[in-house]
Amino acid sequence: MTDSSHVRSYLLELQERIISTVAALDGQPFVADHWHKEPGETLQGNGITRILEQGRVFERAGCGFSHVRGPRLPPSATQHRPELSGAPFEAMGVSLVFHPRNPYVPTVHMNVRMIAATPASGPTAYWFGGGMDLTPYYGFDEDAVHFHQTCKDALGPFGEDKYPRFKTWCDEYFYLKHREEQRGIGGVFFDDFQELGFEGSLAMMRSVGDAFLAAYLPIVERRKDMAYGERERDFQLYRRGRYVEFNLVWDRGTHFGLQSGGRTESILMSMPPLAAWSYQRPVEAGSAEARLTTEFLVRRDWL
Amino acid sequence: MTDSSHVRSYLLELQERIISTVAALDGQPFVADHWHKEPGETLQGNGITRILEQGRVFERAGCGFSHVRGPRLPPSATQHRPELSGAPFEAMGVSLVFHPRNPYVPTVHMNVRMIAATPASGPTAYWFGGGMDLTPYYGFDEDAVHFHQTCKDALGPFGEDKYPRFKTWCDEYFYLKHREEQRGIGGVFFDDFQELGFEGSLAMMRSVGDAFLAAYLPIVERRKDMAYGERERDFQLYRRGRYVEFNLVWDRGTHFGLQSGGRTESILMSMPPLAAWSYQRPVEAGSAEARLTTEFLVRRDWL
Repeated sequence: MTDSSHVRSYLLELQERIISTVAALDGQPFVADHWHKEPGETLQGNGITRILEQGRVFERAGCGFSHVRGPRLPPSATQHRPELSGAPFEAMGVSLVFHPRNPYVPTVHMNVRMIAATPASGPTAYWFGGGMDLTPYYGFDEDAVHFHQTCKDALGPFGEDKYPRFKTWCDEYFYLKHREEQRGIGGVFFDDFQELGFEGSLAMMRSVGDAFLAAYLPIVERRKDMAYGERERDFQLYRRGRYVEFNLVWDRGTHFGLQSGGRTESILMSMPPLAAWSYQRPVEAGSAEARLTTEFLVRRDWL
Repeated sequence: MTDSSHVRSYLLELQERIISTVAALDGQPFVADHWHKEPGETLQGNGITRILEQGRVFERAGCGFSHVRGPRLPPSATQHRPELSGAPFEAMGVSLVFHPRNPYVPTVHMNVRMIAATPASGPTAYWFGGGMDLTPYYGFDEDAVHFHQTCKDALGPFGEDKYPRFKTWCDEYFYLKHREEQRGIGGVFFDDFQELGFEGSLAMMRSVGDAFLAAYLPIVERRKDMAYGERERDFQLYRRGRYVEFNLVWDRGTHFGLQSGGRTESILMSMPPLAAWSYQRPVEAGSAEARLTTEFLVRRDWL
């Protein structure tokens, strides 16, 4: 088995780098919650959940590291790899969702992960996944372009095909079928990735993780002090309801995690601090709120 | 095919009776949204969604009637009846969730429904389902006893076994596995019911529907003017997050409806107007908030 300890080290360092930068921006530290899951029927492992709640810039920002081992790969993970079905596995990753206070600052999600499975006969198989995507409440072209350009630049060294493929994958994944609406303006998403071999695939995953702060922070800096009122706040709370709907109804990681005995409070770090629902909420034609849906929550080539 | 038009009439009358009584209590009317779904790949049908938002007593109260037909029963509906798999079907029901403003008033859910399937060979099969359950934010023994006693009285004429069976079924259904917690103090729940024949089973379903106002309104009257502050409001918003989690992650009707092209805004009438999440929210030992979890959100014999 290839040693995965340097992947673990990278992920822990990435988590620390992200939260220390974001805490400095916010002015409030993240609390740390170290957890262990003892060997049981399903998963064992450990993790560090870092969370900042009711900060100045971020109303709820969670960034988790987890590293788990299990005796049998779940069927959902081996649809495309029947030879690995039921094999012992190891999974580690960093996952974050940041919910800002100001409605002009978009919510962001980033995740990088590695899974390794060791079947009874045959070598350990590795695959990587990850990506990042942006969910604005008020859309700005320049923010969307910057976010996508940073994703594209991070993937460039790994082949010209990667950004377009992973951009499309992201649009397809972060889609609320029951609303016929994208979750946000997208970004990149990949899964089951091993086509560059272990070292090449790992390097690509790292490049995505390393690009996160450059992709998101300039947008936060630009928007965090924009004036807003009750109208914008109400719209933000309403739109956060869609974020909840996506994560609880469609997101495979969340759904699988909750149904299979994952660590609930860490999984639900992605929930917003406050969210609202109202019936067929009216939206004024031509308003910024209307343009979010018609111009931003659609599949577009941003570059 | 037995004529189901009197079932439709009953359900429409029940919806009207409930919302007119609740509107009188609140002082604000329900708006009416009549909808039609044209024949398509999946369902066709019609319904009336009645909703009251930002009322004096209720912050969001939805009560929907729907009547749909489909060309093929979905697999999830025929697990116990392989002979009906893929048969044309008809489903109608009334479903409600009321989210009160005052944290001392519990949220309530009630549903009554009939499904009929007509296989290519063989007679039409009917089955009934329904129930009601109560979700308090602050627990009161007398409210729980009253609610359960009313459910038991409604089921009494249909056999001594019904209340205990349906009470247990309710506890098992409204359970948040990922929190190891009941959604509320329960009530009654039944599904796939036909053991009393068409007329007998329908009468039982009607008895449950007819008992709703008597089960819930006295509790609202008792609690709606109790004084509360920011502490109770914050706790209510936090607990409403659990309601969202149950409905989007575990409720089969919601999940199936959203994934199969149901009418989203009508299905999500059950969502609270506002809900909050926070990480491992501390709760003071021995407080009313702690007692909700230890004394009320557990399986108990209330009678």
